[in-house]
Amino acid sequence: MIHRAAILAVGSELLTPSRIDTNSLAITEQLDRLGIAVACKAVVGDDRDELAAAVRTALGRVDLLVCCGGLGPTDDDLTREVVASVMGKPLSEDARIVSRIEARFAARGIAMPAINRRQAMVPQGASVLDNANGTAPGLWIEDGAHCVLLLPGPPRELKPMLASCVESFLAPRASGVSLQRRVVRITNRTESQTDETLQPLYARWARQAVPVAATILASLGQIELHVSARAASRTDAQRAVDEAAREIGEVLGDDVFSLDGRLLEEVVGDLLVTGGFRIAVAESCTGGLLTSRLTDIAGSSRYVECGVVAYANAAKVSLLGVSESLIAVEGAVSEPVAVAMAEGVRKGAGVEVGIGVTGIAGPGGGSATKPVGTVAVAVAIPGETGSRTFRFVGDREQVKYQASQAALDMTRRMLLARPRS
Amino acid sequence: MIHRAAILAVGSELLTPSRIDTNSLAITEQLDRLGIAVACKAVVGDDRDELAAAVRTALGRVDLLVCCGGLGPTDDDLTREVVASVMGKPLSEDARIVSRIEARFAARGIAMPAINRRQAMVPQGASVLDNANGTAPGLWIEDGAHCVLLLPGPPRELKPMLASCVESFLAPRASGVSLQRRVVRITNRTESQTDETLQPLYARWARQAVPVAATILASLGQIELHVSARAASRTDAQRAVDEAAREIGEVLGDDVFSLDGRLLEEVVGDLLVTGGFRIAVAESCTGGLLTSRLTDIAGSSRYVECGVVAYANAAKVSLLGVSESLIAVEGAVSEPVAVAMAEGVRKGAGVEVGIGVTGIAGPGGGSATKPVGTVAVAVAIPGETGSRTFRFVGDREQVKYQASQAALDMTRRMLLARPRS
Repeated sequence: MIHRAAILAVGSELLTPSRIDTNSLAITEQLDRLGIAVACKAVVGDDRDELAAAVRTALGRVDLLVCCGGLGPTDDDLTREVVASVMGKPLSEDARIVSRIEARFAARGIAMPAINRRQAMVPQGASVLDNANGTAPGLWIEDGAHCVLLLPGPPRELKPMLASCVESFLAPRASGVSLQRRVVRITNRTESQTDETLQPLYARWARQAVPVAATILASLGQIELHVSARAASRTDAQRAVDEAAREIGEVLGDDVFSLDGRLLEEVVGDLLVTGGFRIAVAESCTGGLLTSRLTDIAGSSRYVECGVVAYANAAKVSLLGVSESLIAVEGAVSEPVAVAMAEGVRKGAGVEVGIGVTGIAGPGGGSATKPVGTVAVAVAIPGETGSRTFRFVGDREQVKYQASQAALDMTRRMLLARPRS
Repeated sequence: MIHRAAILAVGSELLTPSRIDTNSLAITEQLDRLGIAVACKAVVGDDRDELAAAVRTALGRVDLLVCCGGLGPTDDDLTREVVASVMGKPLSEDARIVSRIEARFAARGIAMPAINRRQAMVPQGASVLDNANGTAPGLWIEDGAHCVLLLPGPPRELKPMLASCVESFLAPRASGVSLQRRVVRITNRTESQTDETLQPLYARWARQAVPVAATILASLGQIELHVSARAASRTDAQRAVDEAAREIGEVLGDDVFSLDGRLLEEVVGDLLVTGGFRIAVAESCTGGLLTSRLTDIAGSSRYVECGVVAYANAAKVSLLGVSESLIAVEGAVSEPVAVAMAEGVRKGAGVEVGIGVTGIAGPGGGSATKPVGTVAVAVAIPGETGSRTFRFVGDREQVKYQASQAALDMTRRMLLARPRS
């Protein structure tokens, strides 16, 4: 039975000032669900001694060690070899893996480089985990009191492999005490306001038969509330977090945009589908980010007609039909111009909903009356056009992101509030 | 003399799926500059046993242990106590700290809660580090072969304290050996191809007077090579990594797009400025991401005229002037349509450079001849239009990103190769 896990990320780049291990978050999420507690996490470089010491230390303290990274074909990929050596398992080449890697290269018309053979070495008794998205197979090694799972470092290779490993190896060995989490997403409130408002709920949740814990997290343009509950049955834990999420929704009203993990762009997409609407976007300072976020959602071609990134003023005139004199009188960054952009793109595209965003992302271009971070947003829906001016703080990318978030949130609120026929 | 360090982040919230230790990046940056190598990093929760084990393990392997977090006033703040106990140093209350914390509370008109007295406990012989932004003082503990630095968790408290500690304690004990790093970015090659090609360089660098180490990292749409060198003088280390970067550029040619940390969108922007060109973008499957990446760069309004996200076919016709019959004959995802988009947007915007991207981001919309991930890219520069079809693997966002990367790289290569008048 697996109760406690350690996660070890391997790679010298993860010890530099510019890279951080994020794989452990995805791994923790999966282990949490199975009721396996993550007791510690560590990062070591591509260094035989450090890696061996870390593996030895972890195996002395937990039932399950999950390693990620260091399964590549090159000399500095040591995980397979070092783990096998610490566990006293000889390695041998697996012919099936060799032919699978050869086939991957062949599909791209390349012969397999000789060094990739290293990826076919398997410790005695280990189970091989197929890699749908890369050459490095994963490994599951079981040895008396310990289980060790080796996963490749690239997230797109790691995640599907982890999911299949949860099913085949981890779930059957987990205790069944279930931890359930739920993420509630909120706009338009600060972290401390939200926290104060929810204090009475926290106090009550702590005293329940299945207690619910809450962590509040502020990120750019939204607040997230992570609620979690642990119970012997998955159903009980799930019911407790579901009920907690519902209560948050009741207290915070429309400031909650998602009780079920959906992103804001997804929520807006769903509202467009419900209304039977298509959308067109006119962006200036967000530079395409807003349309890109809308089109990140699978199936968004059902409701996204087009986007126009009118970066230069001339483009606002020629592509969106904004009048030159309006820009001259009001300034390119103004609510009237945002309105003209929203209505112009909507009309040009022949759809029901239009968004216009114009602002100053910085670092240059600000003035005393319109400092960097000033953004005008307009949303046109059937029967109503709304506009608002925001002032965001942060660097260029942060202003772009917050402006896209504000535009999506305005669209959401207007679609929710629209008079139904 | 301090050569090797470990960083230990303390806090149960850092073992959840939603929080990550980022303090270690700031700490690594400072240690790097002093030539102190970070041998490993770890995260433990607010748990006496785990914390003690981690401290003991670290002290067995490095000269310097930097802990962050767990210095607060509450019961679950254990770092001070556990470190003192592992090092065998009795704790006693420091009256000066008590009065400083009392003064902080008094300034806000509050009496100091009794629990804050815990923050005034100091291990025997330790130096107290003032905290300008919070109640928790830091501690510097020296003991024969080991130094231990305890820092508070909140970044705005940690950073200034770290800076002053570098000056007073770390710099005088560092070897003066300097570590310099450089990141080289590469497209159009696989990780193993790149690695094989560079093996002769690696071998030579390892034997140099100032050896250069290289780590190769594959990420979506590019390969990164991190080169680093350690030398007694900062100049020597810098010269070694500069020379290594130059040699990589020589071996890999135009596949290297950046020797100096610039991103691909920045390199393309610089080439546009050099050529005196403006650019217009027509995107379908990338949904605005390509234009958004170009406009992430400060000053991009100098060369980005506009972007058109022609998601629906009707938008390709009305906004870009692509002929309906071309779409009917060739299919919306085809090089002729990409060419018509690139040339259409360029002409409409009256600029010199145009990009057209059309493809199938998935998960739906694929066919046997044009599976999900098929993307046609066209780039029109003065005197030349080029097009190419790619097949990317991955989910929707990954296909979008790789397509934007391929379009930027094609633009870069065509601008580099263009005949000069």
